[in-house]
Amino acid sequence: MKLSAARLTVVGLGLMGGSLARALRGRCAHLVGVDQHAATLELAQRARAVDRATPRLAEAIEDSDLLILAVPVRAILAILARLGRDLPCPRFVLDLGSTKAQIVAAMELLPSPAEPLGGHPLCGKETSGFAASDGALFRGQRFVLTPLARTTPAALALAQELVDALQARPLIMDAQQHDRLVAVTSHLPYLTAAALVAVASRAAQVEESVWQVAASGFRDTTRLAGSEVTMMLDALTTNRAAVVGALRQVRSSLSRMEAMLEAADPSRLRAELAAIRRQRREFLHQTQPSEAKDGS
Amino acid sequence: MKLSAARLTVVGLGLMGGSLARALRGRCAHLVGVDQHAATLELAQRARAVDRATPRLAEAIEDSDLLILAVPVRAILAILARLGRDLPCPRFVLDLGSTKAQIVAAMELLPSPAEPLGGHPLCGKETSGFAASDGALFRGQRFVLTPLARTTPAALALAQELVDALQARPLIMDAQQHDRLVAVTSHLPYLTAAALVAVASRAAQVEESVWQVAASGFRDTTRLAGSEVTMMLDALTTNRAAVVGALRQVRSSLSRMEAMLEAADPSRLRAELAAIRRQRREFLHQTQPSEAKDGS
Repeated sequence: MKLSAARLTVVGLGLMGGSLARALRGRCAHLVGVDQHAATLELAQRARAVDRATPRLAEAIEDSDLLILAVPVRAILAILARLGRDLPCPRFVLDLGSTKAQIVAAMELLPSPAEPLGGHPLCGKETSGFAASDGALFRGQRFVLTPLARTTPAALALAQELVDALQARPLIMDAQQHDRLVAVTSHLPYLTAAALVAVASRAAQVEESVWQVAASGFRDTTRLAGSEVTMMLDALTTNRAAVVGALRQVRSSLSRMEAMLEAADPSRLRAELAAIRRQRREFLHQTQPSEAKDGS
Repeated sequence: MKLSAARLTVVGLGLMGGSLARALRGRCAHLVGVDQHAATLELAQRARAVDRATPRLAEAIEDSDLLILAVPVRAILAILARLGRDLPCPRFVLDLGSTKAQIVAAMELLPSPAEPLGGHPLCGKETSGFAASDGALFRGQRFVLTPLARTTPAALALAQELVDALQARPLIMDAQQHDRLVAVTSHLPYLTAAALVAVASRAAQVEESVWQVAASGFRDTTRLAGSEVTMMLDALTTNRAAVVGALRQVRSSLSRMEAMLEAADPSRLRAELAAIRRQRREFLHQTQPSEAKDGS
């Protein structure tokens, strides 16, 4: 099935779902947006991000060829559990959840005609809601697809076409591997950002001017602490073991640097920081050659 | 003395010194740039960021009314120790070092006609070198001034005029307080950024695709890990006690979150993360009202 012939239902018109709807409406046969909030539905309709907006899930799924779940992970799990029971089950099911292992496990249990596929666009912003959505959000960004054993070539081809339409770059990997990696690249940075804000807030109780001294470096390193809490909490609690492992590693890395800083001779700390600087530069060159140039 | 009548010498034409020279040349009577690297001197001259460029410190200071030290903290300390000894000592001395307590202590020892003042523009970029310099770097940013007991009103007035010329916003505080605060807002975020890169690099030894999964969130939270190593090492080692204290706090905050994540009921973690999100938003509203709006 071609994307242009597919009837889409997007559940959740927040940052991700809203951006997806903006990018795909008009490139598919029909696009229904579902959200619990009347204000969001109205915004989406006014922005012409959807052909139809409704709060009613069952009715929105009825005629759908491709169901896209763009809500937090636990809400995705709750909907998956209802498909083919009190909700109709469309042919194609794709989700945009931040963790994948529990979701693909739930997808394995879908009624047999369904052709499910896990997805995760890697383009977080710390803003949330339809008002922050942007049809260009996915452009140039990675879109991870985590196929199941039962994922059909047709489902994968349709998802690839969808990723193309978003101008994103597909990255196919195993759900377990995805979760291990995002623990390090996304969940851990979120928690360190949160911890930095917690430490600064405690300092601000004694000396309020701490905020005046916080410049762009502090703002950038803590940006993720502004992420939507339910989304992040669902990600953390459905990826516990990997996140706890990553937390232990970062604490041990910080302890090591602390010991090096307390040593009389700072040469080991210098070597460590220089190696880290090189590693980050290599990472930028590998992944974002154009951005590496200006050193960002 | 007015800035327009002052003969300036800027030592170090890297990101900070180079940007300062670009912004001040033509707004003072004369501006001499000093750097150890011939290539940097040539770049600065070609960019017309200086009236004269030289590698010779003594000669550059000879006629100077205001000496601005824009090199890493330990290099600033080394030069301060030589002023009035094997180097001439100009009337006004200002530095741009990342920590202030050891610098103002060294300034206290300058020969008596000197009128010293500590400074720290809060506008780090992780890029470095004259090539990255920009006359608009300081615009709208805080410029901390840390007066000594011996700082004269004339020195403070000249520095304020200089901060105005940069379109920066002056913030006067005690050197000890400055160092306590930047331990939390600058040195700690640098070390957490470095630790995140260290953890990801270790993960990449097993699974190379970790870098492919690292998106904008990872890039932003680790941006400071690209900072110039000597500059940061000097800052850390001249602010050891405060940095070690901040490191302990962030590790304990991360431990607490880890325990909350391992608990069966995530409601405490949710409350903690929600409180942190609010604190960060308040911080943005207090300090950067215009940027808070778009949620950055």
